[in-house]
Amino acid sequence: MIIQLAPEVTASEKEAIVAKIKSLEYKTTEVTTHKSRYLVGIGKKEFDIRQLGHMPGIVDIHRVSDDYKLVSRKWKVGRTQVELGDGVVIGNGSLSIMAGPCSIENEQQVRLTMDHLRQNNVRIMRGGVFKPRSSPYAFRGLGVEGLKMWYTLAREAGIKIISEVMQVSQIEAMYDYVDIFQVGARNTQNFNLLDELGKVDKPVMIKRGISGTIEELLYSAEYVFSAGNEKLMLCERGIRTYEKASRNTMDVNAIPILKEKTHLPVIADPSHGIGIREFVEPVALAAVMAGADGIIYETHQKPEEAASDGQQTLDFDESTRLIRRLTKAFELKNSF
Amino acid sequence: MIIQLAPEVTASEKEAIVAKIKSLEYKTTEVTTHKSRYLVGIGKKEFDIRQLGHMPGIVDIHRVSDDYKLVSRKWKVGRTQVELGDGVVIGNGSLSIMAGPCSIENEQQVRLTMDHLRQNNVRIMRGGVFKPRSSPYAFRGLGVEGLKMWYTLAREAGIKIISEVMQVSQIEAMYDYVDIFQVGARNTQNFNLLDELGKVDKPVMIKRGISGTIEELLYSAEYVFSAGNEKLMLCERGIRTYEKASRNTMDVNAIPILKEKTHLPVIADPSHGIGIREFVEPVALAAVMAGADGIIYETHQKPEEAASDGQQTLDFDESTRLIRRLTKAFELKNSF
Amino acid sequence: MIIQLAPEVTASEKEAIVAKIKSLEYKTTEVTTHKSRYLVGIGKKEFDIRQLGHMPGIVDIHRVSDDYKLVSRKWKVGRTQVELGDGVVIGNGSLSIMAGPCSIENEQQVRLTMDHLRQNNVRIMRGGVFKPRSSPYAFRGLGVEGLKMWYTLAREAGIKIISEVMQVSQIEAMYDYVDIFQVGARNTQNFNLLDELGKVDKPVMIKRGISGTIEELLYSAEYVFSAGNEKLMLCERGIRTYEKASRNTMDVNAIPILKEKTHLPVIADPSHGIGIREFVEPVALAAVMAGADGIIYETHQKPEEAASDGQQTLDFDESTRLIRRLTKAFELKNSF
Amino acid sequence: MIIQLAPEVTASEKEAIVAKIKSLEYKTTEVTTHKSRYLVGIGKKEFDIRQLGHMPGIVDIHRVSDDYKLVSRKWKVGRTQVELGDGVVIGNGSLSIMAGPCSIENEQQVRLTMDHLRQNNVRIMRGGVFKPRSSPYAFRGLGVEGLKMWYTLAREAGIKIISEVMQVSQIEAMYDYVDIFQVGARNTQNFNLLDELGKVDKPVMIKRGISGTIEELLYSAEYVFSAGNEKLMLCERGIRTYEKASRNTMDVNAIPILKEKTHLPVIADPSHGIGIREFVEPVALAAVMAGADGIIYETHQKPEEAASDGQQTLDFDESTRLIRRLTKAFELKNSF
Repeated sequence: MIIQLAPEVTASEKEAIVAKIKSLEYKTTEVTTHKSRYLVGIGKKEFDIRQLGHMPGIVDIHRVSDDYKLVSRKWKVGRTQVELGDGVVIGNGSLSIMAGPCSIENEQQVRLTMDHLRQNNVRIMRGGVFKPRSSPYAFRGLGVEGLKMWYTLAREAGIKIISEVMQVSQIEAMYDYVDIFQVGARNTQNFNLLDELGKVDKPVMIKRGISGTIEELLYSAEYVFSAGNEKLMLCERGIRTYEKASRNTMDVNAIPILKEKTHLPVIADPSHGIGIREFVEPVALAAVMAGADGIIYETHQKPEEAASDGQQTLDFDESTRLIRRLTKAFELKNSF
Repeated sequence: MIIQLAPEVTASEKEAIVAKIKSLEYKTTEVTTHKSRYLVGIGKKEFDIRQLGHMPGIVDIHRVSDDYKLVSRKWKVGRTQVELGDGVVIGNGSLSIMAGPCSIENEQQVRLTMDHLRQNNVRIMRGGVFKPRSSPYAFRGLGVEGLKMWYTLAREAGIKIISEVMQVSQIEAMYDYVDIFQVGARNTQNFNLLDELGKVDKPVMIKRGISGTIEELLYSAEYVFSAGNEKLMLCERGIRTYEKASRNTMDVNAIPILKEKTHLPVIADPSHGIGIREFVEPVALAAVMAGADGIIYETHQKPEEAASDGQQTLDFDESTRLIRRLTKAFELKNSF
Repeated sequence: MIIQLAPEVTASEKEAIVAKIKSLEYKTTEVTTHKSRYLVGIGKKEFDIRQLGHMPGIVDIHRVSDDYKLVSRKWKVGRTQVELGDGVVIGNGSLSIMAGPCSIENEQQVRLTMDHLRQNNVRIMRGGVFKPRSSPYAFRGLGVEGLKMWYTLAREAGIKIISEVMQVSQIEAMYDYVDIFQVGARNTQNFNLLDELGKVDKPVMIKRGISGTIEELLYSAEYVFSAGNEKLMLCERGIRTYEKASRNTMDVNAIPILKEKTHLPVIADPSHGIGIREFVEPVALAAVMAGADGIIYETHQKPEEAASDGQQTLDFDESTRLIRRLTKAFELKNSF
Repeated sequence: MIIQLAPEVTASEKEAIVAKIKSLEYKTTEVTTHKSRYLVGIGKKEFDIRQLGHMPGIVDIHRVSDDYKLVSRKWKVGRTQVELGDGVVIGNGSLSIMAGPCSIENEQQVRLTMDHLRQNNVRIMRGGVFKPRSSPYAFRGLGVEGLKMWYTLAREAGIKIISEVMQVSQIEAMYDYVDIFQVGARNTQNFNLLDELGKVDKPVMIKRGISGTIEELLYSAEYVFSAGNEKLMLCERGIRTYEKASRNTMDVNAIPILKEKTHLPVIADPSHGIGIREFVEPVALAAVMAGADGIIYETHQKPEEAASDGQQTLDFDESTRLIRRLTKAFELKNSF
C-alpha cells in the first residue's frame, strides 16, 4: 500500500494515518523524496482502502501487491520522466542516446568524442573514471581529476555526463561533475551505495546485476526511491549464461517486462549485452524495437587503441550509422 | 577443407583426390546431398590448397577452420534459400512468417487458422501433431491422422505445413504430408534423427536445444547436411537461464551471430522465446531487427481454450497486428 | 492418486472403480508393469479416500500431490531395489560401482578392464557402443557387433553390462546383450525412447538432461514406469552452468533432493560431473557422502589413448584407489 | 612473475631489480603485506629467470602463468594457515567449523548459541549484524551495537567471531570486535571494499559471488593480498543456476579446483549452498569429502523463529549431530 501525503499534512493528521495503518496490522515506512512524501505500508491483511481514503492529509492511496512498491506501475501508471536540464529528458517519448568510451583517457579523446556526439545531436556522453576491473593489475581509471576535465569540456559543449560511481565516498566527490550517477552491474546489490544515492538530488541509472533477476533490479530501485530519490532509470546490459559465443546474453525479454512492471525509464546497453563490436548494431536495434527508452553504447575514435573494452566499441563512422538507424527504428516503433 | 566435386567426376579422379588428401594427413568423408557431391577433409596440417585446386574432378575447394564445415559461411558465402514450392521460399530476402496453433486440435480449428493466414498472406502454417510433453499424462497430439486432415485442407488453401517430427519412425509416416520437418528443442542432439533427416529430400528446421550452445546447433545442422540434405534452416527459440520472469530467455544475440557463422536461414520463435502472450510482439519485432529471416509463432482462435501453450498464444487480432508490424520492421531493416 | 489393483481383480470390479474415480472428476490411466497393476488418477478435487478404499479389487490407495506419481516417495515409501541377477542388486543398501571406458574399443581393452574390475570386486561394467557426438565427423562407436563381443566376455567373467541406447530401433538389437539400458543426457526427454523402454523387462538408468531440472528427470522416469517398467534408476551427471573451470557443474544438491522425492536408486557420475581426471575422486567421494546409492565412472588402461573422454578417465591405479576410498566413505555414511 | 624481496633490501637494490624487470617489458607492482614484500611482474615475454635470481635483495623468484599471481599455488606451494589467536588456526590440517545464526538478534540468543558451540568444541561463531537484503523493507541487522554485545560475550566464552562487512566505512567500526571479516556474495567484486580490507591486519573470508566464476573469486582475493593482507580464505556458497529445487547450486567441483589453484584455505557454506534445512547435512558432508578446510553453517535455538534464513537453519540437536559427523568424515578424508 502506498499513501501519497498532502504537502500541507499536519503532524497530528499523519499520526492518525499511521495509527490507522498499524491497526490494520501493516508496518509503515515514511518516505520523503525530493518530490513528494509517502507512507509505504507492508502487510497482508485484506481491507477496504476506503477506510483510509477519506482521512485528511492523504492525496492518494493505492494497493500494490508486488513486493517492491514505489517503483511499481501498479501504483503510478504514468511514466517517470527524468530531467537533466537544458531540455534533455529521459523517458518522455523521445529516444535517449548515451554514447562514449568505456574509459575517459585524456582531453583529446573527450574533445573528439564530443565533436562526434554534437554532429549527431547526441546530448549525453558516457565514460568511466572509476573502473571496476576483475584484476587489481588492470587500468582503474583517471579518477576525479579526469572527471573534472571532462566536465569542463562537457559544459562548454552542452553535453550531459553519465559516469559510474563505485562507492559511497565517491558520491560527494563526483556530485558536482556528473548529470547521472551510474550504478554498475557489480554494485546492483551494494545496498549501502543505493541508500546513499537515495539521499542525493541527482538522477541515478541502475544496471542489472551480472546475473541479477529482473525482480532484484526492481528491489534495488526501490532502495534508492524509498531513500528519497525518484530520479531513477534502469538498464538492461546482458546477463551471464552458459553461452560463450557472446560476452553476455542480452536479455531482450527484460525490456517489455520491465516496461510493464515499473514506471521508470528502461535503457539498454548493447555493447555489454553482446560484447562484439560488429553485432552491437543489430542488438541495439532489437532493444529499441522491444521498447527501450534509450540506448547506451561504447564508441571511441580508435577502438583498437581504447584503454578498455575495445573489442565491443564502435568507431565514429559505425556510431553515426547506428544513431541514424536507431532513430528510424524508434520512429517506426512509436508509430505502432 | 571442403572440396566440391564435379558432377562428371570419374572414379579414378576421385581416388586420386582422396589419395592426395590422405597424403596431407587429412581424414576425408564423402558427402552426397540431393544437390551436389563433396569431400570434407578433417585435419590440421597447413598446406597450399593450390596443390589440389588444379586436379581434375574438382569444381571448388575451400579451407574451413571451423569445426563444422558444410554449414559454415567460410565455405559458402552466398545464403542458402530453401524452396517449398508454389513460390514460397525461405531465405531469399523476404520475411517468412510461420504461424498457427501449438497443437492441431480439429478440423474447425485448422480451417479458422488457415482463413486467418490467407487473409494476411501468410503462406506457412505451424502446428504439432506429435507433442513432446514433460508429463506422460498430458495431451500428446492427434498423430498422423490429424496431420492428414490438416494436409488435405492445407493443399486446398495453398498453405505449406511445418510440423515437428519426434522420432525416426515418424519420418516416413509424415513425409507425404509436411513441407518442413521441424526438429524440436529436446531433439536438437538426437543424432539418429538428424542422420535420418539427412537422407530425406525435404526441408528441415532445427530448433536450438533448451540449453544448447550456438556451436552445438551448427554441429546438429552439419549432421543433416553431411548426411545429404542441404534444405536446412535454424531456429532460435530462447534458452534456459536462471531468470524466471519469462519462460525462456530469448537469445537475441544468437541471430546476428548465426547469420555471420552460417549460410543457412535463421528463424526466430518469440512465443517460446519469452512465453508470455502480451510480450510476444516486442520480442518478435526485436528478432526481425536483429536480422532474422523469419518468425514462427503461435496463434489460435481462442488462446484460452488451446490444448497447449495458451499462455503464449496470440488471438487472430493480435496476430494480424503483429504481421503488419513485422512487415514494416522487416522493410525498415532491409532498407539499411 | 495411485490405486494398486489386486492381481485377481475382475473386469467388473475394475469398471466400478474407474466409474467411481470418474465421478470424482479424475482422469484415470491404467498402468500394467511387469510387477503389478495400477490406476493413476489425475485430478484436483478434494475427497475422502475412504470412499474408495473399501472397494473390491483394490490392494492399496494413496494420494500423491506431486505431478509425477508412480515414481514419488509419497506413494511408495520403501526403496526400489533393482536386481540384475547373480546377486547383483542396486539400491539395497550396498554401494553399486559401475566402471569402464567411455567407448568400447576392442577385445583387449575389454579384457583388461574386466580383469581390473574383478580384482576390485566390481560387478558392473560401463561402456558405450553407440556414442552421441556433437560432431558428425567424430568416432561413433563399435555398434552392436562390439556389444556382442563385450557381452560374451562379460558373461564369462560374471560381469554385468550397462550401455547407452540412443534410439528405439536399438532396443531390440541390444536387448539380449545388456543388463541395464542407459538413457543419456541428450535423450532424457526423448519421450518415444522412454515409452519404448517402458515396455521392456530390463533395468533402465536415466541420466539427468544436460540442463534438465530435477523435476523433469522425475517426469522422464514417470514415462518409463507408467509404460510398464519399474526397474528404474536415476543418475546425476552434472549440469550446464556459466562456470567453465569444469566441464559440467556436479549438482551434489540433487542427490539428497532426489532421495527425498523418489523411491528410485540414485547413481552419481563424477566423470562427467566435473570432467577433469584429477578431481574425479573428490567429487565421487562427495557424492557418496551426499547419499548416492552408486557411482558410475570412466576408467581405461591408458586414458591418454582412449578413443573418447580421456581427459576425465582414471587409469587402473587411480580406479583401484578410488574404489577403496568409496567403500570406506560409504561405510561411514551408512554408520550415521 | 613474483619476486619476494629480502627484508633488508636497500633502495638501490630494489631500483636495480625494477629496472631489470622493465627491461624485460614487464610492468611491476610493489606489494607490501603485513608479512613480506613482493614485486609482482605482469608481462608476456619469455626469458630465463636466472637473469634475475642472482640479484641482491631477492629471496625468491617464481614464474606464475595464471593471471592472478600472489594467491596462486604456482608460486607458493605450501598452504596458507590463518591464525586467529588462542590456538585457533584455519588451514592447518584440522577441520574449522564456524556456526551460528544468520542474524545476531539479542543477548539471550548469543548466549544460547555460544553454550551450544562450547559443548561441541566449536571455536568460531558466525552471525550478521549488517544484513544485505534484497528488499529495503526487510530487517537489516542490529549494527555495531549488536556486534559489541556479541564481542563481549564471545571474549568471555573464548569464541572467535566472523561477521560480514558490507562497506568501507564499517571496517573501522567493526575492527576491534571481529576476528574475521566476511565479504558477502554480493560484494565479491566490490573492489573498493577489497582494497580497504587489504590494508587491515585481520583475517578476511571472501565468499564467491552469487554467479561468480572461480577465477573471479581468485582475482578478488588477489585484490586483498596485493593491497597488503595475506590472512585470507575463500568460501564456496553455491551459485545461481536454472535449477529451482534448491536455493542455490552448491558447486562441489569448486572445492578441489580451488585447492589446486590457490594456497588459501577453502571453506564451504552448505546452508546457502542448498538452502533447505533437512539437506544441509549431506551437502556439508559432501563438501568435507571434496576437500574443504572448514564448514560455515547456520544454527539457531529455534529456527522457526529466526529473524532471517530460518528455512535453512539447523536447530542445536541437528547441529550437534552434524558436527559429530563432519568430524568423522574429515578424519576419514585425512586418512586417505
